[in-house]
Amino acid sequence: MSLLPDNTLITAGPDEGRALAIKLARSSVKATQPDAEVRQRLRSVYAEDHGSLVAIAHVVAVEFATIAAANNYWR
Amino acid sequence: MSLLPDNTLITAGPDEGRALAIKLARSSVKATQPDAEVRQRLRSVYAEDHGSLVAIAHVVAVEFATIAAANNYWR
Amino acid sequence: MSLLPDNTLITAGPDEGRALAIKLARSSVKATQPDAEVRQRLRSVYAEDHGSLVAIAHVVAVEFATIAAANNYWR
Amino acid sequence: MSLLPDNTLITAGPDEGRALAIKLARSSVKATQPDAEVRQRLRSVYAEDHGSLVAIAHVVAVEFATIAAANNYWR
Amino acid sequence: MSLLPDNTLITAGPDEGRALAIKLARSSVKATQPDAEVRQRLRSVYAEDHGSLVAIAHVVAVEFATIAAANNYWR
Amino acid sequence: MSLLPDNTLITAGPDEGRALAIKLARSSVKATQPDAEVRQRLRSVYAEDHGSLVAIAHVVAVEFATIAAANNYWR
Repeated sequence: MSLLPDNTLITAGPDEGRALAIKLARSSVKATQPDAEVRQRLRSVYAEDHGSLVAIAHVVAVEFATIAAANNYWR
Repeated sequence: MSLLPDNTLITAGPDEGRALAIKLARSSVKATQPDAEVRQRLRSVYAEDHGSLVAIAHVVAVEFATIAAANNYWR
Repeated sequence: MSLLPDNTLITAGPDEGRALAIKLARSSVKATQPDAEVRQRLRSVYAEDHGSLVAIAHVVAVEFATIAAANNYWR
Repeated sequence: MSLLPDNTLITAGPDEGRALAIKLARSSVKATQPDAEVRQRLRSVYAEDHGSLVAIAHVVAVEFATIAAANNYWR
Repeated sequence: MSLLPDNTLITAGPDEGRALAIKLARSSVKATQPDAEVRQRLRSVYAEDHGSLVAIAHVVAVEFATIAAANNYWR
Repeated sequence: MSLLPDNTLITAGPDEGRALAIKLARSSVKATQPDAEVRQRLRSVYAEDHGSLVAIAHVVAVEFATIAAANNYWR
């Protein structure tokens, strides 16, 4: 299973780059906890916990930084 | 729905870059918790919790680093 | 209200860069909690909590990295 | 024991880069806790804890940033 | 009071760069908690808490990244 | 006592770079808690705590990013 369509970090623009960053962040969670049922159960907890939401947002920001650099910031 | 007006990271200056960084950080929280009512409820808690405020500030700093690089630091 | 005097990340030297980094970090906290009275109340707690002090120091370090790059490290 | 096959950060593409990032993140945990039995025991706890899963995802994101830069983003 | 002798990030080598990184990290804690007596009291707690020690080490790593880049990695 | 042999960030390859990153991360903990006995006592706790192990892995990742850049990614 390829995580990245066409195995590339290049996206059409920053909006698509954000979507990819979210996807990459979630894929790392899946890599450590492959059981979808467990993740679903955990989700009902963290989606109501602000600390968890911000922690995920932090990971997304780091992934986005890489994707943005890969795309030369879509300049 | 486009997160970024004109789908670009380019802003007029650093002040606008800060505003965009805050917007990106919040958009990641929304992506994981799309229910505005839940976010509103959580907000009343985290806005009074210093750890949460600093955690968000950290995400903003990371997003800003990317935006600043994209804008060649508005030099 | 402009956060950045002259809307620039350029500073005279690293010392001024550190001051700006602290200012940016604090401005993000203000953006999420605009009520100065609440922030003042929270301050009396976090200023006595080492974890909070280090968390803020971390945000300052990230903001400073961006400012330093913007200034080409004042080389 | 070499952590990196051929002692290189170069990978065929981003998918392989993600796999390497996960490997590097786990190797750091091993370096501090070399006892596989203890790690296995801890695993049963953290795999059910969302905060832990996100914390690992954060480390993976940082490692991936380095690997992506090393590969010139597979452009 | 100047934080940086000669107001520069340039150091003789990486060893001096590490020392400066530690100094910068500590200076941020001081900026938020200027009372030396309070910091001394907190110190007796965090120096015995592993989480705190690692949190400070994280800030040092981020500051060092900036200093290293400023010095073109002392290559 | 020099932290870095030959006072350089240059290593033979990424494997040696990982080892140096771990060394740098630990040296920061030592700088704040110089008492080896205290560190040994803390170690027995954090080596069994997954959150601590991941926190250290995070610092290692940040230090490695710097070392990798210094070595131009051993390309």
